[in-house]
Amino acid sequence: MRNFNYYAPTKVFFGRKEEEKLGEILESFKIKKVLLHYGRSSIKKSGLYDTVIAQLKAKNIDFVELGGVDANPKLSLVLKGVEIAKREKVDLILAVGGGSVIDSSKLIAVGAMVDFSPWKFSIKEETPKAHIPVGAILTISAAGSDMSDSCVITNDETGKKRGFSSEQNRCLFSILDPELTFTVSKFQTGCGIVDIMMHTLERYFSDSDESILTDSIAIGLLRTVIVAGKRAIEDPYDYNARAELMWANSLSHNGLTACGREYVMSVHQMEHEISGMYPEIAHGAGLGAIWPQWAMVAYKTQIERFKRFAYEVMCVEKTNDEIKDVEAGIQAFKKYIKDIGMPTSLSELGVKENTLEDLAYNAMFKGKRILKDIITVDYDMALKILKDSF
Amino acid sequence: MRNFNYYAPTKVFFGRKEEEKLGEILESFKIKKVLLHYGRSSIKKSGLYDTVIAQLKAKNIDFVELGGVDANPKLSLVLKGVEIAKREKVDLILAVGGGSVIDSSKLIAVGAMVDFSPWKFSIKEETPKAHIPVGAILTISAAGSDMSDSCVITNDETGKKRGFSSEQNRCLFSILDPELTFTVSKFQTGCGIVDIMMHTLERYFSDSDESILTDSIAIGLLRTVIVAGKRAIEDPYDYNARAELMWANSLSHNGLTACGREYVMSVHQMEHEISGMYPEIAHGAGLGAIWPQWAMVAYKTQIERFKRFAYEVMCVEKTNDEIKDVEAGIQAFKKYIKDIGMPTSLSELGVKENTLEDLAYNAMFKGKRILKDIITVDYDMALKILKDSF
Repeated sequence: MRNFNYYAPTKVFFGRKEEEKLGEILESFKIKKVLLHYGRSSIKKSGLYDTVIAQLKAKNIDFVELGGVDANPKLSLVLKGVEIAKREKVDLILAVGGGSVIDSSKLIAVGAMVDFSPWKFSIKEETPKAHIPVGAILTISAAGSDMSDSCVITNDETGKKRGFSSEQNRCLFSILDPELTFTVSKFQTGCGIVDIMMHTLERYFSDSDESILTDSIAIGLLRTVIVAGKRAIEDPYDYNARAELMWANSLSHNGLTACGREYVMSVHQMEHEISGMYPEIAHGAGLGAIWPQWAMVAYKTQIERFKRFAYEVMCVEKTNDEIKDVEAGIQAFKKYIKDIGMPTSLSELGVKENTLEDLAYNAMFKGKRILKDIITVDYDMALKILKDSF
Repeated sequence: MRNFNYYAPTKVFFGRKEEEKLGEILESFKIKKVLLHYGRSSIKKSGLYDTVIAQLKAKNIDFVELGGVDANPKLSLVLKGVEIAKREKVDLILAVGGGSVIDSSKLIAVGAMVDFSPWKFSIKEETPKAHIPVGAILTISAAGSDMSDSCVITNDETGKKRGFSSEQNRCLFSILDPELTFTVSKFQTGCGIVDIMMHTLERYFSDSDESILTDSIAIGLLRTVIVAGKRAIEDPYDYNARAELMWANSLSHNGLTACGREYVMSVHQMEHEISGMYPEIAHGAGLGAIWPQWAMVAYKTQIERFKRFAYEVMCVEKTNDEIKDVEAGIQAFKKYIKDIGMPTSLSELGVKENTLEDLAYNAMFKGKRILKDIITVDYDMALKILKDSF
């Protein structure tokens, strides 16, 4: 087992109607003024916006608002948020929405403490040292940003999508009410299922080191998502299924499934280029279309781990042919994502064939890096995986 | 799934030689003066004491010392610690040792902020609102106190052992170096194995509600301890086995395995009376001697959960007789604790038969409470379990 740090200090309030404790929670942290940050109209339609406002007013907490966060959140809106946060001297950013809103809030939170563009954090030219606290009310189970230390933003001038990890990116608190995800569409639920699984799969497969406990947690989490995901797609109002997905969303990306393990996310890196260039493509959908082809190349280096995935997560029946079983596991995953209504190829997603080379090149930071998980993903390998996924 | 809060903010530094970062870590938290709290001679023999002192001196961190914590830590020493912490105005309690030292530190940490005896926190007459930060360097995998919110202390005047949970009991940081546990005796390693399993078993069996993810984590953790425990007993210098036990120690009691579940620890409550009355009895040893008899009474209310325990944790082979399999699972656990050298009865532990009634009566707080997990443990039931365990 490798040495590791684990630090997941977010205070989680999980369950039905927990958002009705918002006022109380803010009060416990002595918050006087918040920047309420959200997406488009969905939280107004669902009534969540009204609940939040009522909670703020009941406790006399002052607030300013900034809506308009899109999927693949944009730097331009972050800069607007930074300006408001500084001018209004808010003492918390309240993110009400999904991973995009939370990530946008996180970059505002560190950006408000410096006098340069927070994009420098995204491209790792600067390291954040302080932040305004961020509190989240999550409305979709997917990115795990509510407990993670990561923040992914797209520079809408250049089309570059960049993520960085930092302790400064941990939310102060997170309110997770599975009922808030009842109205998430089947497609978006599917994208979330794939995203959650990928956060765990990429950690599970990024290292050959033994880690019995971490591996058990990863396998259990993956199996949970397979089971609960299917149920949530079939019945969007299945509370327990939504709850399992929501908690899996948080644990998949809070560090727990990487304890004692090396952690390189090649598939995530490749996908970031895709949804950077094609902002209409949902991150989870992109991941699901690529991973099986990465896996078909990578499994030979990690037969034992892929066997466990096949048998314990995808419930492939054992035969005498291990290789066949492992490939059946990967294909079963592909079938699962198709069954829950997700695209299984980049062409289906609208990626143009003549951009594959650029995507591979960009994933290598224009020749400046090579990704190493259990295989080496250089430009040629990235291009092969993208072509196989087309 | 039930509503829950999850809050485990301890910063974990895990792995080989992480204690050599102590100075750096204290500096990062701007600590100027610590109360160094420890047990008897073992940290001096092992050289850990010298490492700690060297780290403090290298960063010019001032310190005062209080050694002498025993297994089943005593209120009298806590009161001495409170007095020192107040007088010397320390800004961190540095616990170097096992769960006893950490628990003693935790009560000093809350006691130093009030002008009454912190025993009032233990008996839940008062609720702590503030604490001096506690940092831990763990030397035995067992109690999970390094990440837990609980603190158990024995009042050496009355023989009462009482635990309480509070956010104020969370350590600021925890240094977990599995190598520090190489020299833990087989018997103490065994006690730790049982304690870790019990923290998880009591949560797993305390509620009939479905919780797929939490259950998977619990089952994975239990299986990890079974496997790694055996290896650590056979070869105390097996780093990976010691590492799995150490991380399981933390996760078993930090709240993770109770998420979405009710949580009543009847067996722990009964054992606290035993090691309260017989301070020479190790907590883990007491637990191991009682649990199987609780399980033999309780399994009928929870056949499915006990089946999973039998098949997935104890690896019992499936037959056509579920009841037989479940009982085989419980007996396999009993055999496991015997195999790792632990006593399997209260008489072996030195409990006197004529004290069983008092023990049962005390576990009910002299008639003032009844424990409800998946069965109701009242005085008669507690006495039956204790007699069966004798």
